[in-house]
Amino acid sequence: MATQSVLIDKSAPLVPSLNSRRVAILGFGTVGKSVARILSEGKLAGLELTQVFNRNVERKRVPWVNRDVQWTENIDDVLASDVEFVVEVMGGVEPAKQWVKSILESGRSVVTANKQLIARHGAELSEIAQEHDCQLLFGASVAGGVPVITALEHGLAGDELQSVCGILNGTCNYILSKMESGESFRLALEQAQQLGYAEADPTDDIAGYDTRAKLVILARVALRTEITLGEVVCQPISTVDPVDFEYARELGCTIRQIGHAELVADKCFAAVEPMLVPASSPLARAQGCENVVLAQGKFGGSTAFSGPGAGGDATAVAVISDLVALASASSAPVIREMRTLPVSNERMSPYFLRFVVRDRPGIVAAIAAALAKFEINVDAVFQKPGYDKARLPFVVTVERCSSKKLQAALDEIALCEFLVEPALKLPIFGH
Amino acid sequence: MATQSVLIDKSAPLVPSLNSRRVAILGFGTVGKSVARILSEGKLAGLELTQVFNRNVERKRVPWVNRDVQWTENIDDVLASDVEFVVEVMGGVEPAKQWVKSILESGRSVVTANKQLIARHGAELSEIAQEHDCQLLFGASVAGGVPVITALEHGLAGDELQSVCGILNGTCNYILSKMESGESFRLALEQAQQLGYAEADPTDDIAGYDTRAKLVILARVALRTEITLGEVVCQPISTVDPVDFEYARELGCTIRQIGHAELVADKCFAAVEPMLVPASSPLARAQGCENVVLAQGKFGGSTAFSGPGAGGDATAVAVISDLVALASASSAPVIREMRTLPVSNERMSPYFLRFVVRDRPGIVAAIAAALAKFEINVDAVFQKPGYDKARLPFVVTVERCSSKKLQAALDEIALCEFLVEPALKLPIFGH
Repeated sequence: MATQSVLIDKSAPLVPSLNSRRVAILGFGTVGKSVARILSEGKLAGLELTQVFNRNVERKRVPWVNRDVQWTENIDDVLASDVEFVVEVMGGVEPAKQWVKSILESGRSVVTANKQLIARHGAELSEIAQEHDCQLLFGASVAGGVPVITALEHGLAGDELQSVCGILNGTCNYILSKMESGESFRLALEQAQQLGYAEADPTDDIAGYDTRAKLVILARVALRTEITLGEVVCQPISTVDPVDFEYARELGCTIRQIGHAELVADKCFAAVEPMLVPASSPLARAQGCENVVLAQGKFGGSTAFSGPGAGGDATAVAVISDLVALASASSAPVIREMRTLPVSNERMSPYFLRFVVRDRPGIVAAIAAALAKFEINVDAVFQKPGYDKARLPFVVTVERCSSKKLQAALDEIALCEFLVEPALKLPIFGH
Repeated sequence: MATQSVLIDKSAPLVPSLNSRRVAILGFGTVGKSVARILSEGKLAGLELTQVFNRNVERKRVPWVNRDVQWTENIDDVLASDVEFVVEVMGGVEPAKQWVKSILESGRSVVTANKQLIARHGAELSEIAQEHDCQLLFGASVAGGVPVITALEHGLAGDELQSVCGILNGTCNYILSKMESGESFRLALEQAQQLGYAEADPTDDIAGYDTRAKLVILARVALRTEITLGEVVCQPISTVDPVDFEYARELGCTIRQIGHAELVADKCFAAVEPMLVPASSPLARAQGCENVVLAQGKFGGSTAFSGPGAGGDATAVAVISDLVALASASSAPVIREMRTLPVSNERMSPYFLRFVVRDRPGIVAAIAAALAKFEINVDAVFQKPGYDKARLPFVVTVERCSSKKLQAALDEIALCEFLVEPALKLPIFGH
């Protein structure tokens, strides 16, 4: 939370500075490509992409990165290069583990999105990093673009967290969301595969192994507790039938795949299971590939984090955030422009307008005419029964318009003798 | 996100080490007392409370802090002492500003929860901190225990954030939640005052000035944009009537006080207003003093953070997290114990059990008897009409019980000839 270095440099450059930190990317798939794109946009002074490693790298070349970037299919080129930070987004435990180990042993810091690697070997690799005075960061390994690792490890460092749970697998959540609308498991899975959300072999997702790896990492970061993958029981979601959603609904619930770790006496409870979750819970509201993490602390109570749990760009944000953290801890911090902007108070929004009037014919026509004069379109008029005609509240909603034009129209309407009190205007969020 | 220093030290002490960093607290109100309590529990090696400043300090003394703590009502005692970190939780702009300035000029870092101070003078004070090679952290100034400053500044550092909005005032949210259930504004406010949620003079909350200060800080951290308090238009919530909630409900919405800042072309839109929010939005679901912050990024999409927005302990968590960050950046990092625990797979939970049976009399009795044998109490039995009697699904919910005992009961039930397929058991979340 060291903010001042960025707060005051108002003349910060937007192009890589002379002492930019050189970055290599291992694995040019969806996430690797997104990381390269954000680095290549040049908005992040202090980080420069200099190397891309991939098997059969020729088919991976893209024209939009700096010409000086070295494309290689030989990992030794990376190990022998002058890069300072390495982004590992290949996936898989081997050879990723050996390569990450070699890079850390050479004193270069690694940023990884590889959950299986970190769940299995994170403690060992972090120890190697510390021995060699560099860092291993893995914010992208859990919940993609939701900054849950930073939030749990740093933002809630002052609490003693006692449990952490959440929806950590977008594929399962997509399938269960579909089943909630009556689809069978088989059809929902086929749709997920057609949309590219699920692999041809979806076992890792369905059986809970993907969530289990993320849960092991969350237990380490949030509960400061090492548990091993093999100890965590996983229940597949394939046993859930659409009829279970019908019964769940009777109980005010829906069904979600939940990873859950909790400190109980001298043990750590950990499981990945489909569970009934109350419709009012943030867990019930996760749709599609959204991820949700809930943490429960001794002092701070319950905190929730949610957002896109997968996708190249969202995961790349987590990778770049870790790179920024590495650079910020160094002598050449990443500097982002801080600007002073004039404030605009003109909102473009649909609006809810509530009038209180002495009822008589022609009121709606008068209001509609005043709105039309300022090119504001009426969306709907609502009038609930049962109110006193001398103080009749009714509502007009208008389509997206300028708050200034709307105020001008309301100023005209304010002159009408039928108004009992000034109109209330509320913008409608999310449009 | 530097994790390795804490990951590998399995023999870390739980008591202050010899080179603990000395901490002073300015202001021994609700938050200051919570900060002192967490520091005094001694679970945070590396931080030691050594000084408490308050006006008329004698009436503030508590017996549960270390005897060596100096209690003083003279700010010069703090300025002249050997404390390294100062926690400012007095509130108010003056004398807080002068004192924070003097402390930073002496090279000591400051952690503050003071939103008005940071909204008005944060940029200037951060500049002073940088000049004197120390830090000014303010994670507690927005949204209490929700680590939104860390998450926005570090966790989403790799994104380009374009808007930030949220529910930032618990008092307004309490009042609007009450009005949602039909209460008048006046009565809801009186209740909030009786419960201590609202001040005797509630203007700061109701008029939106409290939210405005937090919005200015969020714009700085998330949008990297300086705006001034005076530029942000505030609309009070006192204009909202219970009838507006009735009409909002017709539109699938409720009403909340929303602070909203967004980059639009070369300006920053900023406003604090009551708004209609769709019932499906995380904003609609904030109850009581819960805070919610939504950020929208160019790459990572929409991310949401929620949790307790006020309260001594929740705010103290944010203060302590900042102290941990200060200590971690220094040569004497705060070390927390990392442990390896055995995993328990025994869950205590109410359960949803779905059976598929060939229907005949006595099935429920047989199942209930098997459950009773393992001391498991049936909560309810559900059977929806319209299913084939040869493959009839029905549901039994049971009260909180051990997953192991339940499995033993289900293993007995599995022997019954009426079962068409194995029973499905799903734990019910949140009980």
